[in-house]
Amino acid sequence: MIKVAILGHGTVGSGVYEVFDMNAAKIAEAVGQPVEVKYVLDLRDFSHLPYGDKFVSDFSVIENDPEVTVVAEVMGGTGAAYEFTKRSLMAGKSVCTSNKELVATRGDELLKIAEENNVNYLFEASVGGGIPLLRPMMQCLAANEIVEIRGILNGTTNYILTQMIQNGVAFEDALKQAQANGYAEKDPTADIEGHDACRKISILSDLAFGDKFNPDEVPCEGITKITLEDIKQAEKLGYAVKLIGRAVKCDDGKVYAYVAPHLIDKHHPLASVEDVFNAIMIDGNATGDVMFYGKGAGKLATASAVVADMMDSIAHSEKRRDVSWGSGEKHLLKSIDTLSSKWYVRMQGEEGKIMPEMTTAEANKQFAQAESCMRIL
Amino acid sequence: MIKVAILGHGTVGSGVYEVFDMNAAKIAEAVGQPVEVKYVLDLRDFSHLPYGDKFVSDFSVIENDPEVTVVAEVMGGTGAAYEFTKRSLMAGKSVCTSNKELVATRGDELLKIAEENNVNYLFEASVGGGIPLLRPMMQCLAANEIVEIRGILNGTTNYILTQMIQNGVAFEDALKQAQANGYAEKDPTADIEGHDACRKISILSDLAFGDKFNPDEVPCEGITKITLEDIKQAEKLGYAVKLIGRAVKCDDGKVYAYVAPHLIDKHHPLASVEDVFNAIMIDGNATGDVMFYGKGAGKLATASAVVADMMDSIAHSEKRRDVSWGSGEKHLLKSIDTLSSKWYVRMQGEEGKIMPEMTTAEANKQFAQAESCMRIL
Repeated sequence: MIKVAILGHGTVGSGVYEVFDMNAAKIAEAVGQPVEVKYVLDLRDFSHLPYGDKFVSDFSVIENDPEVTVVAEVMGGTGAAYEFTKRSLMAGKSVCTSNKELVATRGDELLKIAEENNVNYLFEASVGGGIPLLRPMMQCLAANEIVEIRGILNGTTNYILTQMIQNGVAFEDALKQAQANGYAEKDPTADIEGHDACRKISILSDLAFGDKFNPDEVPCEGITKITLEDIKQAEKLGYAVKLIGRAVKCDDGKVYAYVAPHLIDKHHPLASVEDVFNAIMIDGNATGDVMFYGKGAGKLATASAVVADMMDSIAHSEKRRDVSWGSGEKHLLKSIDTLSSKWYVRMQGEEGKIMPEMTTAEANKQFAQAESCMRIL
Repeated sequence: MIKVAILGHGTVGSGVYEVFDMNAAKIAEAVGQPVEVKYVLDLRDFSHLPYGDKFVSDFSVIENDPEVTVVAEVMGGTGAAYEFTKRSLMAGKSVCTSNKELVATRGDELLKIAEENNVNYLFEASVGGGIPLLRPMMQCLAANEIVEIRGILNGTTNYILTQMIQNGVAFEDALKQAQANGYAEKDPTADIEGHDACRKISILSDLAFGDKFNPDEVPCEGITKITLEDIKQAEKLGYAVKLIGRAVKCDDGKVYAYVAPHLIDKHHPLASVEDVFNAIMIDGNATGDVMFYGKGAGKLATASAVVADMMDSIAHSEKRRDVSWGSGEKHLLKSIDTLSSKWYVRMQGEEGKIMPEMTTAEANKQFAQAESCMRIL
């Protein structure tokens, strides 16, 4: 019998418990023995639940119980989540998480602590929720140099853009719909300003290119300036508007990484990714473009990815899995000023037009007066 | 320095050499030391190549060289490929392959031999070529019960159907185009009759449901009967015609597995998979639908998947990876007579129509006289 603990009983945390419960037989068969959730850490009162007796409010109970070998950190944030992750790792417990904010900002440090303590810090669920992505990229594409990553990394903004495209709903109304449906937070800033996508493209870049990409330094533009007018003009020209996180490896070894709205040709597989779905396209120098598609968020989808990481940690309890990235010393992030693209530009009172390829710096200069200006992917 | 051997220097075999060559630095970094291709087995004369001195025609040279720890079997077929795979495994060498025919028909036996000899038999490249698929399904979706698999598993037939749909090219002419472009063999039977897709859905079912699915017993229908008339009628009704390999887990634990053309709603992500691309959608009971998309064939794509498996074998040389499936004793394959679907039916001289949901047995009886009859996915 393997014993595990769950830190946090919010949406994902309760989902982790549910997955262990509903798929207990499958998990036991795959791992070779039953897995029991021994503790759930939460300050709130959940004593009414059938598993109410498993709740603890003091992290040190988990920290000091040598029976617990794997911990799910599904609290979110970078405060207590950081402290408890660090203490868990130092107590010789593997930690698996969906906490993209923590992974993006302190992943390098936590991976190092995991390595020193010969345990795992795994975070498949932090990008793309339930979509298998980080492990396939690191293992199945291991024989490839990654050339480019392009992804619809945030379900909330994709839902809003889909409403604008398909039903002609204005941005503000589509945002309200997203909030009413539970797809957007009360404070939607992290989604609509692109910060969430930015954390995810930073994590993907970290893993693909072997250096730390600080999300605070990665240029990031959200979808708040996109109007129905641009959506219609793009449609007429044969494009869909999507918020894309992108990383491009250059010949000099440096990497353009950024988040911004793009126009995408309707025949491109990313153009048909609708609603809250995510899709990430990875271009390897041998395998070409491969794409991963699915629900990028949601209770059970995200939880099942956390549980799969926990199962992997159990299977690799003897031999630590080698997942690590650089500390940022390579300074791989390159200014997008020199990134060249075709552009969609709409001047006030005019129709939208496709402009020939030019660099970001040139476009910023030439189209400074434009109503809107977006790259074409 | 790790030493490996390549059995066969055809399209994939020469690609495997090329990937080791072009991505040598990346591979050495990931594995922790350089990897050298010590031998290439082929009966033909390749002495003109820069690596001509590596060629051997006698398998026992490789078999008896203890320095060689991992072997790529990229010969194809079930004759010498089977013998050399078996002998390699028994000599304590891991074998990685793209040979779907051999995996689908004797995978259970070869996995058992691998287990007995504490080495790996890995075959990511056998389904979906360069698309990461088997490993993500087994590892990232490990916490899910797999409910259903639906895939465009054969690039040749998808190319032919795309030509029929987009350019109104008749089947026979589209086939000739596919042959002229090198997408179809001179004898295209295995592709157009669905046998290739059938082997792949058998392998996927084996892994997803833990029993051997014999491709000879899996019902299989190709695309030779599809006419431009049906393509047009489907289009008018809002559907695309695609050859789908499908496996559905039933409440009784049994599995419907089969290959047949289907009509797919144009808004479904599988409908927009065009040309030689493959895409496989896997429905897990926690994560919902996830889809994997990319080139299902091609020299470097397939080769890079073989090389990734070889790298994985090197990393797991001490601890054998647990990949195994049943021997067929569970008899999970269920007759599709009771499988219920909506149907597209076209009677002679009439327009195509969508029929309400009914079982295969009912449809076979009711539409025995139809010009064409296909399931709707």
